[in-house]
Amino acid sequence: MASSSYSNPPCAACKCLRRKCMPDCIFAPYFPPEEPQKFINVHKIFGASNVSKLLNDVSPHQREDAVNSLAYEAEARMKDPVYGCVGAISVLQRQVMRLQKELDATNADIIRYAYNEMPQPPQP
Amino acid sequence: MASSSYSNPPCAACKCLRRKCMPDCIFAPYFPPEEPQKFINVHKIFGASNVSKLLNDVSPHQREDAVNSLAYEAEARMKDPVYGCVGAISVLQRQVMRLQKELDATNADIIRYAYNEMPQPPQP
Repeated sequence: MASSSYSNPPCAACKCLRRKCMPDCIFAPYFPPEEPQKFINVHKIFGASNVSKLLNDVSPHQREDAVNSLAYEAEARMKDPVYGCVGAISVLQRQVMRLQKELDATNADIIRYAYNEMPQPPQP
Repeated sequence: MASSSYSNPPCAACKCLRRKCMPDCIFAPYFPPEEPQKFINVHKIFGASNVSKLLNDVSPHQREDAVNSLAYEAEARMKDPVYGCVGAISVLQRQVMRLQKELDATNADIIRYAYNEMPQPPQP
């Protein structure tokens, strides 16, 4: 006969924290057992208690987004302990500035073309 | 007479954690007493122990950058508990895509001008 003691496997958070995963576990919906690294990362960078506090502070429909952004930040911080995802922000900010400069220059060229004033090479 | 018991004020971290600030305090160079909020934020989001571990894991000349990026992330998470600074990354990524698209279109216009093919209005 099948055993009657079957229970769902604990979520990745409760497994990592070695505690019983209760039906109202705040982590369970966002840290499934098949993705253990996701919790390990946020636990290492933010701490389980801070993650739990943050989840309780945001409304239930925003918790999945909150967990995903925490997981993204944690992974970035583990890959780059000095800059974390702030490094990505700096790269993107430089990219925006470069593109904006290029676009301004190209728009200035268009105006020259429109007035039939082709850009001249610099005079010696 | 001046008191001989004068000692430097504790750094913002030791003051917040209510502990004696020792001369080799890992936090003191990066959390001066006149910027209390900087430590309060990183402590709330990452936890003092995680910040201390991270500072010990990076080389001394990178610690200031590490603290500043942690402070930036912590402040962003306090302002936006759901997305934190990942929200800024999404905004910048969309901005890069929009600028790149605009630049491609402007470059295509330049080629049309160069071949004297002005862009035509759409036909009815």
